[in-house]
Amino acid sequence: MTLEGKLLIGQQAISGQQADIHAVNPATGETLAPAYPGGSKTEVEQACALAEAAFDSYRETTLEARASFLETIAVEIEGIGDELIERAMAETGLPRPRLEGERGRTCGQLRLFASVVRAGEWLDVRIDPAMPDREPLPRADLRQRHIGLGPVAVFGASNFPLAFSVAGGDTASALAAGCPVVVKGHSAHPGTSELVGRAIQRAVAKCELPEGVFSLLFGSGREIGQALVADPRIQAVGFTGSRSGGTALMATAQARPQPIPVYAEMSSINPVFLLPEALKARGKAIAEGFVGSLNMGAGQFCTNPGLVIAVQGPELDAFVAAAGEAVKGSAAQTMLTPGIHDAYQQGVGRLASHGKVTEVARGQAGETAHPSQAGLFVTQAEAFLSDPALQEEVFGSTSLVIACADTQEVARVAAQLEGQLTITLQMDDGDLAAAKQLLPTLERKAGRILANGWPTGVEVCHAMVHGGPYPATSDSRTTSVGSAAIFRFLRPVCYQALPEGLLPDAIRDGNPAGVSRLVDGKRE
Amino acid sequence: MTLEGKLLIGQQAISGQQADIHAVNPATGETLAPAYPGGSKTEVEQACALAEAAFDSYRETTLEARASFLETIAVEIEGIGDELIERAMAETGLPRPRLEGERGRTCGQLRLFASVVRAGEWLDVRIDPAMPDREPLPRADLRQRHIGLGPVAVFGASNFPLAFSVAGGDTASALAAGCPVVVKGHSAHPGTSELVGRAIQRAVAKCELPEGVFSLLFGSGREIGQALVADPRIQAVGFTGSRSGGTALMATAQARPQPIPVYAEMSSINPVFLLPEALKARGKAIAEGFVGSLNMGAGQFCTNPGLVIAVQGPELDAFVAAAGEAVKGSAAQTMLTPGIHDAYQQGVGRLASHGKVTEVARGQAGETAHPSQAGLFVTQAEAFLSDPALQEEVFGSTSLVIACADTQEVARVAAQLEGQLTITLQMDDGDLAAAKQLLPTLERKAGRILANGWPTGVEVCHAMVHGGPYPATSDSRTTSVGSAAIFRFLRPVCYQALPEGLLPDAIRDGNPAGVSRLVDGKRE
Repeated sequence: MTLEGKLLIGQQAISGQQADIHAVNPATGETLAPAYPGGSKTEVEQACALAEAAFDSYRETTLEARASFLETIAVEIEGIGDELIERAMAETGLPRPRLEGERGRTCGQLRLFASVVRAGEWLDVRIDPAMPDREPLPRADLRQRHIGLGPVAVFGASNFPLAFSVAGGDTASALAAGCPVVVKGHSAHPGTSELVGRAIQRAVAKCELPEGVFSLLFGSGREIGQALVADPRIQAVGFTGSRSGGTALMATAQARPQPIPVYAEMSSINPVFLLPEALKARGKAIAEGFVGSLNMGAGQFCTNPGLVIAVQGPELDAFVAAAGEAVKGSAAQTMLTPGIHDAYQQGVGRLASHGKVTEVARGQAGETAHPSQAGLFVTQAEAFLSDPALQEEVFGSTSLVIACADTQEVARVAAQLEGQLTITLQMDDGDLAAAKQLLPTLERKAGRILANGWPTGVEVCHAMVHGGPYPATSDSRTTSVGSAAIFRFLRPVCYQALPEGLLPDAIRDGNPAGVSRLVDGKRE
Repeated sequence: MTLEGKLLIGQQAISGQQADIHAVNPATGETLAPAYPGGSKTEVEQACALAEAAFDSYRETTLEARASFLETIAVEIEGIGDELIERAMAETGLPRPRLEGERGRTCGQLRLFASVVRAGEWLDVRIDPAMPDREPLPRADLRQRHIGLGPVAVFGASNFPLAFSVAGGDTASALAAGCPVVVKGHSAHPGTSELVGRAIQRAVAKCELPEGVFSLLFGSGREIGQALVADPRIQAVGFTGSRSGGTALMATAQARPQPIPVYAEMSSINPVFLLPEALKARGKAIAEGFVGSLNMGAGQFCTNPGLVIAVQGPELDAFVAAAGEAVKGSAAQTMLTPGIHDAYQQGVGRLASHGKVTEVARGQAGETAHPSQAGLFVTQAEAFLSDPALQEEVFGSTSLVIACADTQEVARVAAQLEGQLTITLQMDDGDLAAAKQLLPTLERKAGRILANGWPTGVEVCHAMVHGGPYPATSDSRTTSVGSAAIFRFLRPVCYQALPEGLLPDAIRDGNPAGVSRLVDGKRE
């Protein structure tokens, strides 16, 4: 299809009236057509009005209808074909296999949520039957189900142009919860966004849903994004991006007359602990795995291993030497945007010029317009413990090794870590006692704890937690990846002694929706 | 036992050094001994340090040990005997049967959470087994469980000196979730608080738990309360009280370097819709039920029916006349505190002096020091719709009737309501269509919807939602009463490929904890 450079408001495609947004091919610096004139508060207003109008009807769709809608979106995205991959390659500099994989993940994610919707556990149905003869007071019939919070604002992320963008995890889980979605598309990949947005638009029409279930806006984040979060009809926000962006949205959401939840996934340096036995036995292999994870996607994963912690000594020296060699051999990759490239250069510069940090190695410089150049640095735990700036995320394929005097210092470093998405243990059998000592601290610091793997590669499944204590996210009680993400957009409602004719299917006698229910405290 | 007027810090009893707090018998104005010298930041610091030290051990207690602890608290509270009831009567002016009932509810609540802990659904265990041969990439073994957020600050409420206070719903659910609790006792009932606090202290010792699992502070809310919420070790807050108090805690919690969740239950006027057929058929009986609910506990329930909405006409006139008669005959009751009494007088005064509000009736004036005097007022929907001040809660046994021109105006009033804990429908069979029209709006406005009952009398069970959209509470996604309250204090952690020796029982192979698990998306 021909990209039109328009905002999608319900079933309409509308031209924005504000400054043009242009995608830039980060590999070449070339500007990509078409222009996307930005929207204004007018379009925010229109999209939110439609979303509000759609909510009561959309949230009462049957489980089957809603699941089928999510599957239709997946089919429509797949139906775009190679045009989607080629446009995404041009807009992001990411290679074809990565984007094909990401498309598979995005569609798989939609289908996972379809299965979650059908299973109906998210309704958390609880029924406490009436006890009219109870003494001293009778009990009324009480039934609970969950309903969607209302229209949700989703901010597309730059680093996953499909899986965390227009039809990504936030959108899929909000739609699954019965919430209309208004997406603010990321300015770095508007063409990819339009293609996916049109796929959702088609799915809405095919499934005969109210058009306000989905809209897609482009424009300046400061204007459109803040207006969207401030709109009284928006009831929750999903965001993946920088800490400054996330905290700005949190402040706007809290300053509303009615504060709303913000689910912002913001930053993480994903510490890796190299425990002594593992380091001794297989330091070189660990170094190779580490640099492989570090370079994945030009280091632009939320779960990139940006910190390595170990006790100093010849084993750590050997690991650093091997990792340094691997970093030196790392080919440059194209970074997502000029802005991300600039921030990366600055972050690496801060490490390189830090008085207590030593550069171990840099990767190949590369020849694209915005190349990543891997980096490995080392410092002492004492320096790390006394300078919070060394915990700042450098978004890209650079990592900092912390050499600790002893096990006690490793524990102090662990205790001083900020909240993280992941923490990894490289450990052998002989490290079990040391790992056990660390584990309670790690559980309080991160949403996911790994042994002998690498944090990149976030599985979309039921047990996944892509979340963690602040500042990794704004809300440690949730995950933004995996089926449990649906719970972010729900709230419970209790129905007391309502006549059968008023009750929604999920909580009617006879269980016509066929969902799991907790009846008088017993699971049925 | 002899009340000592001390703060309880872990297993210690410590004298505060700040200004004395004295309970006042609201029926007589008499000051009650002993004095409770207030604590300072020093005691906040001590309590939080102990709570932090207790957390890792307490959160890994077995399900049985934790359940047994909750049950031991109940036994210890019951063991106080009549002294507890008499002290609570003196401190609150509430009558004996009410306080005996509330003690039963408090202990029942602790036992309910014991059963919830044992059942283990709150762990939300999810296991996605490894798929080493999956193409194109293998899947690692992924296991999720929930853990407590960390130490929790609980603010005792004035209006439920047992069930929403030291060992009330917030404390019970936080302890059930594995979180140590630091209570800021309400200054209106320090003796009741000390008695219950000592019961918990004894239960901690009997169950051989780390002493920091529970502490009880007294002191100025502005000083102690804010210091507690700002303490970096506190990870969540439970509060029931005024909107100004709740929003102040929300602001403090958001301004921390690490923001934390605040569960504040703040205000609600609990609208009651009188639908036409019900009003016609049984207006007088509804009026009697309404005034009974209005007067319950001197109107000092969070769920007191402070607003009545109906279409104007002779049926509504008859209802108002009957309700007015019942209000006139309402005996005065003693209000909880001089402050609450003052605020009530002011609130009633605002209604009485409002140019568009008519006084229908006042109850008996009473002769205690701080009497409630019931009140019934009426206004037109037009006035209500144009003056947000008419939605302000008047905490006490006063209600405002809104006369609407027609059904459309009823719908407009419903749409303009702020968030509520409850909304009630008085309806007959012939009102079903009208109720269906209203229901989607009501579901978005309230946590609990009732038919043909009264909102007072909140059942402690599985299906209860004592919550609702802001400003009824700070977080519509939760409930502060009922077994689902445990979810407020939990967060998920995912364990990827951890060796068996590192895994907690709940997610080990063979399910040694015997809890419900979602394995590969299937419930086991």
